[in-house]
Amino acid sequence: MTYCVGICLKDGLVFLSDTRTNAGVDQIGTFRKMTLFQKSNNRLFTLMSAGNLAITQSVKEVLLQGQLSNGKNLWNVANSHDAAAVVGDAVKQIYDRDHKALEKAGIDFNCNFIFGGQVKGESPRLFNIYSAGNFIEATPETCYFQIGESKYGKPILDRVLNYSTPLNLATKCALISMDSTLKSNISVGLPLDLLVYEKDSLKADKLVTIDESNPYFQLIHELWGEKLREAFNSIAEPNWSGSKKSSAISSPAKKMGVISINREIRKTAPTKRK
Amino acid sequence: MTYCVGICLKDGLVFLSDTRTNAGVDQIGTFRKMTLFQKSNNRLFTLMSAGNLAITQSVKEVLLQGQLSNGKNLWNVANSHDAAAVVGDAVKQIYDRDHKALEKAGIDFNCNFIFGGQVKGESPRLFNIYSAGNFIEATPETCYFQIGESKYGKPILDRVLNYSTPLNLATKCALISMDSTLKSNISVGLPLDLLVYEKDSLKADKLVTIDESNPYFQLIHELWGEKLREAFNSIAEPNWSGSKKSSAISSPAKKMGVISINREIRKTAPTKRK
Repeated sequence: MTYCVGICLKDGLVFLSDTRTNAGVDQIGTFRKMTLFQKSNNRLFTLMSAGNLAITQSVKEVLLQGQLSNGKNLWNVANSHDAAAVVGDAVKQIYDRDHKALEKAGIDFNCNFIFGGQVKGESPRLFNIYSAGNFIEATPETCYFQIGESKYGKPILDRVLNYSTPLNLATKCALISMDSTLKSNISVGLPLDLLVYEKDSLKADKLVTIDESNPYFQLIHELWGEKLREAFNSIAEPNWSGSKKSSAISSPAKKMGVISINREIRKTAPTKRK
Repeated sequence: MTYCVGICLKDGLVFLSDTRTNAGVDQIGTFRKMTLFQKSNNRLFTLMSAGNLAITQSVKEVLLQGQLSNGKNLWNVANSHDAAAVVGDAVKQIYDRDHKALEKAGIDFNCNFIFGGQVKGESPRLFNIYSAGNFIEATPETCYFQIGESKYGKPILDRVLNYSTPLNLATKCALISMDSTLKSNISVGLPLDLLVYEKDSLKADKLVTIDESNPYFQLIHELWGEKLREAFNSIAEPNWSGSKKSSAISSPAKKMGVISINREIRKTAPTKRK
């Protein structure tokens, strides 16, 4: 599996992806899910992928070759929205090529992308592109997308992130979200690829590959578990007797009583027919 | 959907279930997922269910009627393992009755149970029963089971729980796990049914239904988000310049370089054939 998270903020974008791929538990490999596309001083795009690796690698190749039928590619489109449409077209192209054979083999056409970046003159933008090639865009109200094994790492994003979160805090949040996923799911694994993109820079200055030896990821990995346990311990235990009002747990619910307890149904023997 | 968690500890058992059921977003209902079976001073069992409600209600009904073909039921079996087998037999009975019609309708035979309790003379035991009626048992190494929307609430269980955790702490942990799930997934909803079972009590003394007005759940709901943000804020931000060694994020990975940046492939025009 995979876990990727992309965040679109007032100050820029954060992209984080793992590198584990598996087809069954005994076929585990390392493949990068992040690809960068740049035209100096004009645009920078980042693509992250989840799903069937044969599909996502083919889509990436189409994009790198830049030869889409209508003459548009990631280096010549006018804006990020059109760039997302180019990615969508690449997905459709691979669908047309492969879907019949995949269907025969009983395999879903399964791929999912986070794509975002900035073209000079517009704001940074972030998209989630589906396997049909259609896509949605992040907004200030919903400023992040996740693909792959997204559920373990969602609670911390929901608690901390909003559109005004500074890039450095969002980076920390993304890494904690990844650390929670790594801990609970073995199909997601190190190293990680991280890009923190500062609005209007049009450059990938903060691009790093993170493995076990990365001091900051070590710090997150060790401290977060500890801090979480501290937070856990600082909350009062449930009080069953009702002696402490603030932590009383046995107070009855308003609309529903406590569930009933079932004892054996004693049956009378059926009366014999005469 | 559903979220239920069952925990088996040295001191007893904790069962927590939500009550939301949905078939599409406009058919949302409240159904209890927890059922208690008791024989005074001899045994107490708890069943929690996830999956197709028509299936799980039928299984529950078979168990309540106590008329399994081989004469065994939850009130007369010798131990908890045999009781789990009785639940498995009830699942198989409903499978035999319904699976053909479900197949015709294109519906999976989808059900999943957490079942546990204690029979006088043995320790408390906990089982996860699958839709084939087979089951596994919790051990000191893996002391909890989740069914339904399990991923959001798994990280906190993984960080905090072990077999020696006191019942009150495990209760707090289960409620935080539920609160995280409620926050990230609207298909899980209040009220909650909670049973904290003390080893050898053979009684359901700590049984409560929790809604929005429950003081302890309010406390968890308000404090946990706050404490989580405090924990988050207490961790240093990533340091990109490398000036602070402990939080340096830009240190290179050992085996892999940073991903390369793709610029447009300039193609030479194909040579015309003479």
